[in-house]
Amino acid sequence: MSSNRTMDYRSAGVDLERAESEKRGFRSLLAATKDRLTLSDLGVFGGLYAVPDDVPDPVLVSSADGVGTKLRVAFLSGRHGSVGQDIVNHCVNDILVQGARPLFFMDYLATGRLEEGIVHQVVEGVAAACQANQCALLGGETAQMPGFYADGEYDLAGFIVGIVSRGDILSGADAQPGDALIGLPSSGLHTNGYSLARRILFDTAGLKVDDAFPRLDETVAEVLLRVHRSYLMTLTPEIRRGSLLGLAHITGGGLPGNIPRSLPDGLGARILKESWEVPQPFEVLRELGGVEESEMYRAFNMGVGMVAIVSADQAAGVVARLRESGEDAWELGEVVEGAGVRLV
Amino acid sequence: MSSNRTMDYRSAGVDLERAESEKRGFRSLLAATKDRLTLSDLGVFGGLYAVPDDVPDPVLVSSADGVGTKLRVAFLSGRHGSVGQDIVNHCVNDILVQGARPLFFMDYLATGRLEEGIVHQVVEGVAAACQANQCALLGGETAQMPGFYADGEYDLAGFIVGIVSRGDILSGADAQPGDALIGLPSSGLHTNGYSLARRILFDTAGLKVDDAFPRLDETVAEVLLRVHRSYLMTLTPEIRRGSLLGLAHITGGGLPGNIPRSLPDGLGARILKESWEVPQPFEVLRELGGVEESEMYRAFNMGVGMVAIVSADQAAGVVARLRESGEDAWELGEVVEGAGVRLV
Repeated sequence: MSSNRTMDYRSAGVDLERAESEKRGFRSLLAATKDRLTLSDLGVFGGLYAVPDDVPDPVLVSSADGVGTKLRVAFLSGRHGSVGQDIVNHCVNDILVQGARPLFFMDYLATGRLEEGIVHQVVEGVAAACQANQCALLGGETAQMPGFYADGEYDLAGFIVGIVSRGDILSGADAQPGDALIGLPSSGLHTNGYSLARRILFDTAGLKVDDAFPRLDETVAEVLLRVHRSYLMTLTPEIRRGSLLGLAHITGGGLPGNIPRSLPDGLGARILKESWEVPQPFEVLRELGGVEESEMYRAFNMGVGMVAIVSADQAAGVVARLRESGEDAWELGEVVEGAGVRLV
Repeated sequence: MSSNRTMDYRSAGVDLERAESEKRGFRSLLAATKDRLTLSDLGVFGGLYAVPDDVPDPVLVSSADGVGTKLRVAFLSGRHGSVGQDIVNHCVNDILVQGARPLFFMDYLATGRLEEGIVHQVVEGVAAACQANQCALLGGETAQMPGFYADGEYDLAGFIVGIVSRGDILSGADAQPGDALIGLPSSGLHTNGYSLARRILFDTAGLKVDDAFPRLDETVAEVLLRVHRSYLMTLTPEIRRGSLLGLAHITGGGLPGNIPRSLPDGLGARILKESWEVPQPFEVLRELGGVEESEMYRAFNMGVGMVAIVSADQAAGVVARLRESGEDAWELGEVVEGAGVRLV
């Protein structure tokens, strides 16, 4: 029961000093996202955020998400800010679907050995996206887990809390056959399909992150790291106006997997594939990988990042207003009898 | 731009069918934690939870946490339920420190390949602890990240939201020199110091998870996987009574790292080491690893899971009531002038 070796926490791979210095670096990033309801600073056990008093019958809307293997592209290219924005925007969209506006966000970043530059880049991206979405970065956890992650690698998750008045919750429950589906463009793959995309581009096609992406004036890294868009600013005017019956955020599972989540049982969707041009990155992936079309629509968003459900007589007005605001929206299909999503 | 190989998402390591079947398995686990304020079921984009209407001037208290490399012990022993409980209890304690009671919890579980038994065990643990803490399991994310995690391994994070009335927030801000510090026992290492503990037990001492833990009637796995205690039920009566000035959850950084988080600037703590017997697991780790005493108190909780700050004249009453309720509380020190924690 004795040993002539002495051991400390740092030799076991955990550096408490560096964790403290890292935390100090976060302080100003968090401070920039504070609003009048943020009641705490970094360092408290739990972050404090006052419930807004201007929302009648308030309901909290919350979501947890990850960035998935898009992170691998960040590792390969050494660019770590965009995944920080991705995770915030992904979470913002997930609660926007129920009509909620964001209150605050927390991140979880787990790594093997803390590399200050990398962690700081990620949290900078998180903080920038929080500011853009008028959402407080209330806190988070940076975990040092030696042996779990290779040097320079990490996992990243996000948690968001938003608020909506009970009477304003969007659920799609009132959708009926004949209602219109309006598509909003994605900026790229957003955060889905990266395991398949990496397999195709890196393993099958033998491309590197700095190579030109086929047919595009961007590198592979630039295309794959395009930031997951937030639809908050674009859709908030329509939500306030009450013109939407429901929304579907097109994430894992694609259009077929996500539209049904916002429709009543027994209803489905008819999607007109010719109503939009599938962006080049998806066409390239399909061709290089020889991926079947149905699989493409399940693995990727195919250029559609968000779908709004509106009554048929509102459709033209919603599309017109969105287009006027600079959003390239279009009617992409309709609600039909019978479950499932048919691509025609 | 063509290929004679066809590729699909499953061959790239992501199994959407299994993810769906896994989700169905979670449904009943979540349902068991629902309360009257839980307005959503699994499958929605964001979980819905009504703000309680019986809390005047309500403030949300939120925390994000991980289990750290305690997970490695779960992997080695094939027991995955207790880490699910750990992450919930850890989060519950972190917001209890500010006087909050939990409303809802979300988990993030990331794995390489979904192994249904393992993920289900973890979420069962999460759901059981949510029930025990009267907290709704509102949702979560199970991420399939091929290549990020070895088979059978995963990372686990938790996110909690609780509520407290603004006037009832515990902050320690009113603590003064002479106030008493009351210790509440931990059940074991809780979720801190595992990188060092594993290094000592497995690498230096050559023990296996199924070996007897030195001096104890438990195996190494049993000792290391003891569940991180929740102090919610124990401390809620004292919080309601208004007898506490502040609380400190003893996590990473130990007593020296955590007590100052709940004291005003310029005040510190004098801890009487002889006021309690350091539990055997810590003594064994110190001896086997030859770890210096100061390092032990920074890496481990040393038997103290939570510290309450109370005015000197309240101390005896608080200790007596806690003991009456079955909690082995004791006076472990006092608040003193001057920053820092002195162990005497």
